[in-house]
Amino acid sequence: RENSAAKGYIADRIFAPYSVYKGKAALSVTPVLPTFTKLDSGTLVVDRRGVMMMKFLPAIGERKYDNEKRQMFALSPTEVGSMISLGPKDSCEFFHDPSMLSSNAGQVRKSLTIKAHADGTGYLISLNVVNNILKTKEFFTVPVTTAEFAVMKTACSFALPHILGWDRLTNHPSREPRRTVG
Amino acid sequence: RENSAAKGYIADRIFAPYSVYKGKAALSVTPVLPTFTKLDSGTLVVDRRGVMMMKFLPAIGERKYDNEKRQMFALSPTEVGSMISLGPKDSCEFFHDPSMLSSNAGQVRKSLTIKAHADGTGYLISLNVVNNILKTKEFFTVPVTTAEFAVMKTACSFALPHILGWDRLTNHPSREPRRTVG
Amino acid sequence: RENSAAKGYIADRIFAPYSVYKGKAALSVTPVLPTFTKLDSGTLVVDRRGVMMMKFLPAIGERKYDNEKRQMFALSPTEVGSMISLGPKDSCEFFHDPSMLSSNAGQVRKSLTIKAHADGTGYLISLNVVNNILKTKEFFTVPVTTAEFAVMKTACSFALPHILGWDRLTNHPSREPRRTVG
Amino acid sequence: RENSAAKGYIADRIFAPYSVYKGKAALSVTPVLPTFTKLDSGTLVVDRRGVMMMKFLPAIGERKYDNEKRQMFALSPTEVGSMISLGPKDSCEFFHDPSMLSSNAGQVRKSLTIKAHADGTGYLISLNVVNNILKTKEFFTVPVTTAEFAVMKTACSFALPHILGWDRLTNHPSREPRRTVG
Repeated sequence: RENSAAKGYIADRIFAPYSVYKGKAALSVTPVLPTFTKLDSGTLVVDRRGVMMMKFLPAIGERKYDNEKRQMFALSPTEVGSMISLGPKDSCEFFHDPSMLSSNAGQVRKSLTIKAHADGTGYLISLNVVNNILKTKEFFTVPVTTAEFAVMKTACSFALPHILGWDRLTNHPSREPRRTVG
Repeated sequence: RENSAAKGYIADRIFAPYSVYKGKAALSVTPVLPTFTKLDSGTLVVDRRGVMMMKFLPAIGERKYDNEKRQMFALSPTEVGSMISLGPKDSCEFFHDPSMLSSNAGQVRKSLTIKAHADGTGYLISLNVVNNILKTKEFFTVPVTTAEFAVMKTACSFALPHILGWDRLTNHPSREPRRTVG
Repeated sequence: RENSAAKGYIADRIFAPYSVYKGKAALSVTPVLPTFTKLDSGTLVVDRRGVMMMKFLPAIGERKYDNEKRQMFALSPTEVGSMISLGPKDSCEFFHDPSMLSSNAGQVRKSLTIKAHADGTGYLISLNVVNNILKTKEFFTVPVTTAEFAVMKTACSFALPHILGWDRLTNHPSREPRRTVG
Repeated sequence: RENSAAKGYIADRIFAPYSVYKGKAALSVTPVLPTFTKLDSGTLVVDRRGVMMMKFLPAIGERKYDNEKRQMFALSPTEVGSMISLGPKDSCEFFHDPSMLSSNAGQVRKSLTIKAHADGTGYLISLNVVNNILKTKEFFTVPVTTAEFAVMKTACSFALPHILGWDRLTNHPSREPRRTVG
């Protein structure tokens, strides 16, 4: 086995988040692609599943946000499925433990909530991070309009097959091996 | 005529299923692309239609599944259309005979059922395989949440044009014939 | 100006229709891409708009269809928009004159109708061709299930940006000019 | 930092608008892609966000439109989200000041309105441009059928991830660095 990154298969790194800047915090959403491992047979296998990364920054002044105090929440494909199937009056909540399966399991608890406004004009997206090691509690809350949520749903629906790795499945002529001159 | 595989047109083999692991069985879904044949005129014709492959594995312990006892069910494009147009209270059932048109026709019967939960919280996906040759009956049942089904619908909607071969239709500059040095 | 075909920009010819075979006729649907013209400035301009080609074949026996007696109907992007926005009880009708703007204008009249079944279980797609020159009238009618129509809607929604030529708009690194050796 | 255009990363210029020609004015819609800047680390960062460009031309005769008197309105990704989430009875309005943050701020005011017909048969898209410098007022109004709006929604949903720059995120093998001969 060899990691695909070593074979030049890694995608270009791109920084193209969709961001909304609100009074108390900013939220930006970016897809993170899976990594692949190439088997001896030549088959590429998904190694680490892709995610949709949600980044929250607290406001520290008018239109100023503190990148140092950012908190991340990585939505799995199924959590993305939950988000894109939310109706105009629905809500959902996800719980993550970033130290799961390690000796620090349970010490840090993150929960992300997406809650429809009662009047159907959008959603409130909140992140709650309780860190028992650092003895900190952080809470971010970002109101998102129907239009902004439509962008997130459309862009996440587009990204979902990519974070699953399905965009590698293509009928286009294989570009490898390409004959090079040397 | 020559088969496209022989001409290097075959896609990279990728293993990137979307899987759900439940108490009695696991289900994973992967698109399988069509194969093309190149006519003397240069036109590519779909040779074997692509499918959406559903793989069921029985549970043999906590979070352990027996890959040896897997059963497959290959959804045709129209069956995928049926799945992605299911409403929250709808159901559908498909019947396959893997030996159809052979002397063993009717000996193995497979049926796949997708049935909405009465409370609208998801679906039950079941596979029933009756093999009269081996005198076996197998039954798999996998409860799927609304979020997991949304992933399947979104990913299968993405994959549908690919299993039809329509992603080959592209306005991008043809990369063939590419001039090579030799 | 030079036509893009002359510059190797034409897409590979692919034959990958989505077809349904019914008692009286068969219907197959294939996207046909636009052609581009390259201006002296290097900009590519859509020359001839793409269409969604509907081909009808009359049945001439059990599972046999007569390709010689085929009739075509080319859906424009807006007509595709009409088709993909049809609700489960809606209908639409399109009229084409293949000789429009020529001296034979009005001599051949084609109309395509998509009509929902009253019970919501699918649609009836009919093509009517009246040819006053050949003194012929032809009528094709193909019942299409909800699942088959879902495939058409999903595949046509995928194809719509391609027949508009929008898939050429891509952020991927330009592959031209590519340096070639020789 | 270097601008990506200088590195050959700019997309081919394509002119493939979706246009509707009506009695008083014509409207055409084209996506405009973002530009990227390459950091020293090799990461590509979106420099200027993409938009969906709406171009209005006044009618000056039967099927004749005056390109000299065109007015443009550039929809941001969030405004595109607003448009694609419009229900059959909804309306939305956007206000732009093309001189925002300059000394001419407030002198030119543009507003775009999308308003559903009361009978649900389509939308009226209007652009109002008040230019206090040139002492001009211009008003364009284009009725759009349900089918035409379905094309706009489908094509804009397709284009949205591209104007965000997300189509650069791909699992396909990196094509760079490509070895060239020279």
